[in-house]
Amino acid sequence: MPTIVMKFGGTSVADLQRIENAADKVIREIVRGNRCVVVVSAMSGVTNQLVSWVNSLTPDYDAREYDAVVATGEQVTAGLMAIALQKHGIKARSWQGWQAGVISTTAHGRARIQDIEAERLERALAKGEVPVIAGFQGVTAAGRITTLGRGGSDTSAVAFAAALNADRCDIYTDVDGVYTTDPRICKDARKISRISFEEMLEMASVGAKVLQIRSVELAMKRGIKLQVLSSLEDKIGSDLPGTLLVKEEDVLESHLISGVSCSKDEAKITLVGVRDMPGFAASMVKPLADAGINIDMIVQNVTADGNATDMTFTLSSADLHKAVKALEGVADKVMTDDKVAKVSVIGIGMKAHPEVALTAFKAMADANINIMAISTSEIKISMLVSETKADDAVRALHSAFELDKVEKTPQILKVKHKEGR
Amino acid sequence: MPTIVMKFGGTSVADLQRIENAADKVIREIVRGNRCVVVVSAMSGVTNQLVSWVNSLTPDYDAREYDAVVATGEQVTAGLMAIALQKHGIKARSWQGWQAGVISTTAHGRARIQDIEAERLERALAKGEVPVIAGFQGVTAAGRITTLGRGGSDTSAVAFAAALNADRCDIYTDVDGVYTTDPRICKDARKISRISFEEMLEMASVGAKVLQIRSVELAMKRGIKLQVLSSLEDKIGSDLPGTLLVKEEDVLESHLISGVSCSKDEAKITLVGVRDMPGFAASMVKPLADAGINIDMIVQNVTADGNATDMTFTLSSADLHKAVKALEGVADKVMTDDKVAKVSVIGIGMKAHPEVALTAFKAMADANINIMAISTSEIKISMLVSETKADDAVRALHSAFELDKVEKTPQILKVKHKEGR
Repeated sequence: MPTIVMKFGGTSVADLQRIENAADKVIREIVRGNRCVVVVSAMSGVTNQLVSWVNSLTPDYDAREYDAVVATGEQVTAGLMAIALQKHGIKARSWQGWQAGVISTTAHGRARIQDIEAERLERALAKGEVPVIAGFQGVTAAGRITTLGRGGSDTSAVAFAAALNADRCDIYTDVDGVYTTDPRICKDARKISRISFEEMLEMASVGAKVLQIRSVELAMKRGIKLQVLSSLEDKIGSDLPGTLLVKEEDVLESHLISGVSCSKDEAKITLVGVRDMPGFAASMVKPLADAGINIDMIVQNVTADGNATDMTFTLSSADLHKAVKALEGVADKVMTDDKVAKVSVIGIGMKAHPEVALTAFKAMADANINIMAISTSEIKISMLVSETKADDAVRALHSAFELDKVEKTPQILKVKHKEGR
Repeated sequence: MPTIVMKFGGTSVADLQRIENAADKVIREIVRGNRCVVVVSAMSGVTNQLVSWVNSLTPDYDAREYDAVVATGEQVTAGLMAIALQKHGIKARSWQGWQAGVISTTAHGRARIQDIEAERLERALAKGEVPVIAGFQGVTAAGRITTLGRGGSDTSAVAFAAALNADRCDIYTDVDGVYTTDPRICKDARKISRISFEEMLEMASVGAKVLQIRSVELAMKRGIKLQVLSSLEDKIGSDLPGTLLVKEEDVLESHLISGVSCSKDEAKITLVGVRDMPGFAASMVKPLADAGINIDMIVQNVTADGNATDMTFTLSSADLHKAVKALEGVADKVMTDDKVAKVSVIGIGMKAHPEVALTAFKAMADANINIMAISTSEIKISMLVSETKADDAVRALHSAFELDKVEKTPQILKVKHKEGR
């Protein structure tokens, strides 16, 4: 009997009616002959309320107590979902993280799952029970409650799928899949039916808020078939297809570019006239690393006289203030700009097609958008642009790669390169 | 160093401000040189919300899941209270029922504490930590979450006071103590400074809603000094005295009557013309016991011909419908009345003073209130009256026993008996 893990996010269990709708989806999978394991988030809004209580007492809270407070959101949903399933004669029961054997690190508030002691759950499954697991939760070896960070229920679901050797892990959320870009920016955005884990990781890290990155990493590592589905639009009996996350070799159709993502939460720092000597980059990065600040694109240009250079890098705008402080004394002059955005085109197909960069840069030129910095990886080209131009850039790239068209043939063939700059 | 358990009820932790006020009270006790153990209820309103969610899904819910849902209220408060204490440099941490070793029966929704495995808590206390325990919660031997029934946090507090050999157990609530009667009925009601456990049990069972009965029973059995205090009116620095619950021999002043209580949630059933033969009372009680219905006052009168009798008893009005059904076929005619109230005078002093009954009956006669039934125990006289006369009866009794006067001398000496009926 196939085992599937079904995870319902906050909006999918926002109220009693939606919890009952979610229960109906579980029943549908049981009727189809599947063995189901359910993982639930807190009812939407609940976690925010709990977090705000903690923060109102003091922003300098004990993360262990934060976890004790915040983990209750999932506990409530798990109990309610079990009852909703029992109403239909299903042998369901709720499992808290500590009951289900989710052993985590002690990094409270952003703990990582170290091990899932799945024996108890396996026994329950063998007896025909449907476990309803409170996602997001773990327990330390010392018995303290932990939480896995925002979106952590996705990771809980994938971890249980791995521990129980599930045949599929379905993530029900409030969007019906992963889109080629943000539909609010580009009305031609189209749902992607299959995307590789690698592409999804790049999409997630630069803006697509569909899945917690760690859950995608874990699914990739453990080879879990992961599916994103809408729990809201779907009517019982009709399966609307979502987006399937698969291994690179299982992306059937020949994608070139899968999507365009955009992150407006970026800032840029330029260190002016720093000495161009070995070790300077390291001397710049160290204080930032010490302050726990991740930096992203790094651009270094040699100036005319060959002695001094400008160095530019990007970082999350939330870290800007902290970074400027950490860099005191490193350079004579520090210029900052938090009105920048990072626009990226992502696709496993670009590995074999260097023309992609050309297409991207031409699209930006045609739209009269200045590129401040560029960084590339095997499956991604990121460009830093002015925040005011970000949406235009997304639309230009989406159109240049014909992402609005149904995925059939490698789009590169249809891209026309215009002449000149 | 004296150990005290401090329990804060729902209204005492209703919002963040009140949680901080409660934390201040804990700090005050620490400053006084006490070792503190804190037990908290859910923020007021939270439990009702959780219960209503469960009931909205189905009134026929699995009590194990009910417990998983409802126990979260206390978990939230425990975490928030720990943070509120930490703000002042106190080494506090939250303990859920399953963490604190509260082993309970499997009677979900109304579980009883079987054992408190206090070693972990004792180690924490020895390290100078202030444990903040989520009240109301337990865990079964199999690891399922239980709750102890409404008011169960009182019982949690007393159980921890017993397990930790605490010197005192302070119950902070939204009233400042136990009153001689309901101040809403009788404006002369006065706070009782000391009351015996036995009297408190009688007060509680007939209407005073200050403490869960089980907590009083447990405190009496284990000899715990129990104190009821207001957490609301008390300003930091000024200790308003509450009511101290003590052993009978520790009631210093010679009470005769401690209080008058009134229960309007009563109904009366009369079986008319039943045969006056041995075994009838048993044949009447058995179907009621089988249906789980408690009956209280039982009055039987022999009729003129000596063959048939009327039998009257009282019960909770909530059980009336069920009782009438259970009694089908037992008597020819069943008369019911749910517009009755039970008014009781309570006091350990009455044991040695039979005049108390006379004083009570005369007070009722003077107020022109008909007594439908009477039952007495060693420390209580209860009278069944028409519901419309209940408040008058309370005031008449309160006045006849001069309960508005400060407790000094045995009041019986001052009661003047009027002549005639």
